[in-house]
Amino acid sequence: MNILIRGATVLTMEQPQPLLHNGEIIVEGQYITHVGPAGSVSPERTFDRVMDARGMLAMPGFVNCHTHAAMTLFRGYADDLPLMQWLQEKIWPVEERLEPEDVYWGTMLCCLEMIRSGTTTFADMYFHMDEAARAVEKAGLRASLSRGMIGLSPGAGEALDYSRRFIRDWHGRAGGRITTMLGPHAPYTCPPDFLNRVMEVAADLKVGIHIHIAETRAEIEEIRQKYGKTPVVLMDEVGLFEFPVLAAHCVHLNEDDIRILVEKKVGIAHNPESNMKLASGIAPVTRLLAAGALVGLGTDGAASNNNLDMMEEMRFAALLQKVATMDPTALAAFDALSMATANGARVLGLHDVGLLKPGYKADIILINLDQPHFYPRHDLVAHLVYAARSSDVETVIVDGRVVMEKRRVLTMDEEEVYHEVQKRSQRLVGTGL
Amino acid sequence: MNILIRGATVLTMEQPQPLLHNGEIIVEGQYITHVGPAGSVSPERTFDRVMDARGMLAMPGFVNCHTHAAMTLFRGYADDLPLMQWLQEKIWPVEERLEPEDVYWGTMLCCLEMIRSGTTTFADMYFHMDEAARAVEKAGLRASLSRGMIGLSPGAGEALDYSRRFIRDWHGRAGGRITTMLGPHAPYTCPPDFLNRVMEVAADLKVGIHIHIAETRAEIEEIRQKYGKTPVVLMDEVGLFEFPVLAAHCVHLNEDDIRILVEKKVGIAHNPESNMKLASGIAPVTRLLAAGALVGLGTDGAASNNNLDMMEEMRFAALLQKVATMDPTALAAFDALSMATANGARVLGLHDVGLLKPGYKADIILINLDQPHFYPRHDLVAHLVYAARSSDVETVIVDGRVVMEKRRVLTMDEEEVYHEVQKRSQRLVGTGL
Repeated sequence: MNILIRGATVLTMEQPQPLLHNGEIIVEGQYITHVGPAGSVSPERTFDRVMDARGMLAMPGFVNCHTHAAMTLFRGYADDLPLMQWLQEKIWPVEERLEPEDVYWGTMLCCLEMIRSGTTTFADMYFHMDEAARAVEKAGLRASLSRGMIGLSPGAGEALDYSRRFIRDWHGRAGGRITTMLGPHAPYTCPPDFLNRVMEVAADLKVGIHIHIAETRAEIEEIRQKYGKTPVVLMDEVGLFEFPVLAAHCVHLNEDDIRILVEKKVGIAHNPESNMKLASGIAPVTRLLAAGALVGLGTDGAASNNNLDMMEEMRFAALLQKVATMDPTALAAFDALSMATANGARVLGLHDVGLLKPGYKADIILINLDQPHFYPRHDLVAHLVYAARSSDVETVIVDGRVVMEKRRVLTMDEEEVYHEVQKRSQRLVGTGL
Repeated sequence: MNILIRGATVLTMEQPQPLLHNGEIIVEGQYITHVGPAGSVSPERTFDRVMDARGMLAMPGFVNCHTHAAMTLFRGYADDLPLMQWLQEKIWPVEERLEPEDVYWGTMLCCLEMIRSGTTTFADMYFHMDEAARAVEKAGLRASLSRGMIGLSPGAGEALDYSRRFIRDWHGRAGGRITTMLGPHAPYTCPPDFLNRVMEVAADLKVGIHIHIAETRAEIEEIRQKYGKTPVVLMDEVGLFEFPVLAAHCVHLNEDDIRILVEKKVGIAHNPESNMKLASGIAPVTRLLAAGALVGLGTDGAASNNNLDMMEEMRFAALLQKVATMDPTALAAFDALSMATANGARVLGLHDVGLLKPGYKADIILINLDQPHFYPRHDLVAHLVYAARSSDVETVIVDGRVVMEKRRVLTMDEEEVYHEVQKRSQRLVGTGL
């Protein structure tokens, strides 16, 4: 299907001229084949579909670099608690009771919320991942999926077998929208001998590794006591960074850690709202970027955020860096927006996603600028980062296919999702509310 | 006009049972006269209007305790800059060029955005306040208005005269929706002799005082050098706290300052997003609340936020306290929600606003719960603070009058507001975008 989008203000996210007024975009199949000014497309050319996007901003869909999709099931189930109490008394016991179909519906709710807030790609780490993949396929999103593995658990070998089989089954599926990674949970739950087995599989299947690193002070302390080094140095010495790595959090880093992450081109998923809500700490994003690190943005799971809203996440990222460094120029608007789009895609190893540019995948969102918070029109990039709401997203295109139009999601039945999720969450954790 | 709202989940904000499932609310004239369970209203009673609010949450409208409404005109005009460069090179020069009608339209845009995000009451400090008051009257909101005064400026006497006349003209107008305060800007711009003149007027007219206190480290340092004390101690010694005071910011406080603010029952407006964006610092909200201080929530002006979204502000307040104290239990959801409603009203001296309770003013918002981020229904208070969006607000009632219904604002022409604001901002600061 070929689509012409015309009349929009186009935010390509390419410097030095990221904004194009009254632009024209052509989508052919899965790809963007043209981005140009008004009149750049011959009036003789015909299209299956012409979208009048006057009053809209067209930009790349958001890339959510780290989440646990099905944890939408536990949104609001346990808040304002200390981390270990939250995990041990609340989250882990209900996760024990999760059935594959629960993960399907939890992931569907996650996808629904992401579509409605302009996210077109996400990285997920959870379990029952066949069900998660089925949900992604149905929802029409792009995703990098990994089966989370606790190396210390008795089920670690089984999880690794599952991962191997899952990657073989799903990598490149759904027209290439689904990619996969290996998901060893963290340095403190996956000792070096288990990571060695993970790396063997990574080498064999040629996939990257999605892992949590340096999320809390407790982790730093535990790894220091066990190994006498930082989690980053440990992972480097184990050889993990010889593979493409997506490292979530990276909150507690010293200068040596930062140097290693930059040198080894580790992709970092910064999750400011989750880090704030769980009181994990403030990641040194400004220092990471100054050192040349590759940093994307993630929401983390809805049990610790509690939504999947990337516009909100950009705002938290930018404002948190400003106050943490006591420098109002820190993490300027365009840099936050890059983290949420182009750089996020690079973190996931997707090199044709995250820009509006010929040859890139057609992952495009249209934002309705006819809202009080977009006036006056001084600076649209600043407005997106500091003033917009994800509900301003009107239309979402993923891989050349319209998945939401005028805020109606076309790939699923919203009422069915709500019904299934509510029913399942009641079975899992009681009536609630 | 009498209204019956039925079928809603009612969040009264009254402890110990703030939530009422399937409740009924009666509005008579400006007041709430009944809040009860389904069936508590006789089916024989008739009403001018019956609102079916099934699938909705009814709660008190938000109270924005500190803003500079007309600064919506400068939204996105100058971001990511150091504070003094922002003020001296950007904001102050354009404020010089502001005409009264600009303030009217800037305030209208502010009111439009506030209505659309569920705010029903706000505290404003700016100039050309007759125009601001006209806008509030037209928009249908409740507001506490103060003419900002720079005691050090040559126009200080004139500003005080204006304030006196403005308070006489407007206090209690618009059916009581408009109240007024005196607005000396800050301790570092208003020396004690000017504050003495302000307090004379306050005593004479029996109004409170709206002032910025302890916003930045630079202010603390300047006051220490000039007077050898903190801004809070200085204001206390001057006698300011013998009047009802709305103190915006209160970011940099020592234990003695906190003790004084509590003892003197000073109302504090916490503005987390502005404090983060301008890199002013993190207010010790957790310590203030533990000490018994009265703390509300504000957005500050749209030039330093850059929106007027109180749901977002609650989320920033809660998450910022958690990470600042490294305690995930800090500023729990209900406390953040109280700051944004009932406690905010008390900060403004409005003792019949901020709860859904008979005898309280009928400032009510209806929130559409049919959104992915409200599922599953574990805890609606947590959902409001950690997951909701202000665009979920469907209907807004202020002082018994419906000002927005199904997201259509009934008190103004949105397109006219956008047009006027865009035209005026272009005259003031150039084309932009």
